Amino acid sequence: MRNLLTMNELSVHDIEGIISQAQAFANGEGWFPESQTMVANLFFEPSTRTKCSFEMAERKLGLEVIPFDAGTSSVQKGETLYDTARTLEAIGVNALVIRHEQDAYFDELKGRLSIPVINAGDGCGHHPTQSLLDLMTIKQEFGRFKGLKIAIIGDIRHSRVARSNAVALTRLGSEVVFSGPPEWFDEGIGIGGYEDIDSAIGTADVVMLLRIQHERHAEKETRADAEYLQRFGLTKMRERSMKPKAIIMHPAPINRGVEVDTDLVECGRSRIFKQMENGVFIRMAVLKRAIEQIKGGNIHENSHQKWSIAR
Amino acid sequence: MRNLLTMNELSVHDIEGIISQAQAFANGEGWFPESQTMVANLFFEPSTRTKCSFEMAERKLGLEVIPFDAGTSSVQKGETLYDTARTLEAIGVNALVIRHEQDAYFDELKGRLSIPVINAGDGCGHHPTQSLLDLMTIKQEFGRFKGLKIAIIGDIRHSRVARSNAVALTRLGSEVVFSGPPEWFDEGIGIGGYEDIDSAIGTADVVMLLRIQHERHAEKETRADAEYLQRFGLTKMRERSMKPKAIIMHPAPINRGVEVDTDLVECGRSRIFKQMENGVFIRMAVLKRAIEQIKGGNIHENSHQKWSIAR
Amino acid sequence: MRNLLTMNELSVHDIEGIISQAQAFANGEGWFPESQTMVANLFFEPSTRTKCSFEMAERKLGLEVIPFDAGTSSVQKGETLYDTARTLEAIGVNALVIRHEQDAYFDELKGRLSIPVINAGDGCGHHPTQSLLDLMTIKQEFGRFKGLKIAIIGDIRHSRVARSNAVALTRLGSEVVFSGPPEWFDEGIGIGGYEDIDSAIGTADVVMLLRIQHERHAEKETRADAEYLQRFGLTKMRERSMKPKAIIMHPAPINRGVEVDTDLVECGRSRIFKQMENGVFIRMAVLKRAIEQIKGGNIHENSHQKWSIAR
Repeated sequence: MRNLLTMNELSVHDIEGIISQAQAFANGEGWFPESQTMVANLFFEPSTRTKCSFEMAERKLGLEVIPFDAGTSSVQKGETLYDTARTLEAIGVNALVIRHEQDAYFDELKGRLSIPVINAGDGCGHHPTQSLLDLMTIKQEFGRFKGLKIAIIGDIRHSRVARSNAVALTRLGSEVVFSGPPEWFDEGIGIGGYEDIDSAIGTADVVMLLRIQHERHAEKETRADAEYLQRFGLTKMRERSMKPKAIIMHPAPINRGVEVDTDLVECGRSRIFKQMENGVFIRMAVLKRAIEQIKGGNIHENSHQKWSIAR
Repeated sequence: MRNLLTMNELSVHDIEGIISQAQAFANGEGWFPESQTMVANLFFEPSTRTKCSFEMAERKLGLEVIPFDAGTSSVQKGETLYDTARTLEAIGVNALVIRHEQDAYFDELKGRLSIPVINAGDGCGHHPTQSLLDLMTIKQEFGRFKGLKIAIIGDIRHSRVARSNAVALTRLGSEVVFSGPPEWFDEGIGIGGYEDIDSAIGTADVVMLLRIQHERHAEKETRADAEYLQRFGLTKMRERSMKPKAIIMHPAPINRGVEVDTDLVECGRSRIFKQMENGVFIRMAVLKRAIEQIKGGNIHENSHQKWSIAR
Repeated sequence: MRNLLTMNELSVHDIEGIISQAQAFANGEGWFPESQTMVANLFFEPSTRTKCSFEMAERKLGLEVIPFDAGTSSVQKGETLYDTARTLEAIGVNALVIRHEQDAYFDELKGRLSIPVINAGDGCGHHPTQSLLDLMTIKQEFGRFKGLKIAIIGDIRHSRVARSNAVALTRLGSEVVFSGPPEWFDEGIGIGGYEDIDSAIGTADVVMLLRIQHERHAEKETRADAEYLQRFGLTKMRERSMKPKAIIMHPAPINRGVEVDTDLVECGRSRIFKQMENGVFIRMAVLKRAIEQIKGGNIHENSHQKWSIAR
């Protein structure tokens, strides 16, 4: 079962393999499953951006995408996520892409399905394809991870990718530092210290801005936008202090004029739209990895007697 | 016009033909229409489960599915269902799958469209593909209907399938009894008497549980869940009294711990997920039956002069 | 860049070319892009009818349609329309079809995207594919525009097509008059005078009824339906006064018994469902025109370095 739930389950070798396959897709390589393959995208938390990216990846691989409207699904009638996933498995879906607002929603599914699950984001937990596309973008730019300094800046506590990226980049040999509002710094990550915003931006090879997730802040503590930009955002002045080959990254959607000056969004250093482009290729690679495993196994034979072997 | 609106319009021969075709699909047979064929699923009442099953069937037949969002459709602006259906016909949709909260919504459409309508559920009325998949599951298990005893248990009055299944099974030679809360028993069905829950479960070949449709109960008469399970549900103790080869069926979504003990959902007797699997094959057979009729006719020639022959 | 934003940007030659291509599609001609082509339909204002028509056109051309749910998109989180469109471009969408409640929403996008935008309706502004399908329907009927008298009747002020059609038809050589409630007549159009309802209907070759857009009338000034029909609608009596070969058109959805007597909706003169049928072919022609331009250009080469040439 080739699930992809968190970055932790991937070895450095796995990560490099996925990035390498994604780069091959970016270079025009094609791959299609041998038989008609069905996938469903279960987005219990809306995310048009990530959903469109997965849809694009799925179409490029020639998969059939079964529409699933989480807003009107039986989950609303009290059905468990397991029963929903099991239903889709029973009707012939070969792989599930799931986003859910609950942290580690996938614990309920582990080892209980015969089809793979790809995590497209769980609560404040993980978002492995976002991490992988970030890594791919860095690799494209510098050809390596070793010796790079990555500054992760902003709403670290509510970010699904800050922690995953910090851990993965450290494993890959980069140095990670955090910056932004000190009260949003999460010492619990245990990797990478807090650095002053001007120092972090002036010395990093990658300035990785995080989105302020207004919708996740229960308290209305968020500062006025212009004030945030001046104190902790990437202003034009700070951009001029960046190292000559340093790049700007952001997972989007961007709050223009908050995390970053609007004029910098598409500047020569920005890889923001490149990240989105890479996201499709990463998702193709992750889907291929999941599907090859299925087709290598004998899921179709099992599926005819699932009821007799279950439990 | 090969509509499928209710089970009543199908002869025993028709039913056997559909089940036989569905079984051929389950065994791996393929069938595709000769030319590009468009279908739209109009779900005015949400049902992710049934919609996904139809979508899967449609994809397996190579049909193009035109997305239709009932929630934002012109029906909300006061358009009649007929005008909506007629519009889809005009733009080239070759078959309609419709679920609607109004009983017999299809009376408005009968004889007025040149494309077939497949009923995916009307109010408290009919749900013929659900009935057919239930019949297919029983046929697979026992190879026959004659001489079987089927116990239909639960919310009979609000069930779309209780009546259809009772009528069809009786025509096919089975004996049908009902059980569950006596006040939910509907004498109006005119087929099959009421039997005590323990007796029904202990003597039936098929224990067919119905979902308690909390959302259809205007009155808040529904009992506490645990109490319902003890009095009228399939407990582990009752399961042990079942005949050796008897099976458990449920149309899903399941209220775990209400109609059935959660540990029995995937037990060896359960055909609940098998029913879902069969549902796709039944819908393929029903769609094939509708489409063959279209393509046999000359709908495309008509469609260019529809305006001149209408009315 | 082969955008289609308003009718104004099309020459008479362009209009004739699009109608001619649409007629070829109606006659059974096929056309498919050389490589996999992705399109997204961004409907920020719901319109099942227009969306289904575009979807049908896209499927008939073999395009891949990436589902986009405007209701849950990042636009709701404050993302600009430009950033949303740019995102879809980055992930590989080759053309955008957009409907938006804001007049001239496309001004924000002009010259900033490398993929074409097809306007499927902007606020009270434009709806060029609706105009083109109206023109195609007239052309089919009369073989010409010169010398025809077109009466546009009803809610002119709130209509996206009244103005566009009036301008285009005048350029093509037809005479345009307006009728309906005098207070809804918009002198600002500058083309075509106001004519009494009975005179307009009795002398026109084309009686083009507009939908009363209840949802756009802030004031509850709309008259009782039956009264509207008698005073300004197409009653059976007025229909009898129409010229022998005159036709009835309406953009739909129809308010039956308001703009038109319900018995006339599918009468021999009515081209209402024919318009819908033509709409698919017009949209195919418009999409082909946009896509040929893309594939003729070198968008794919650009897309790999978009980030370096942007801004």
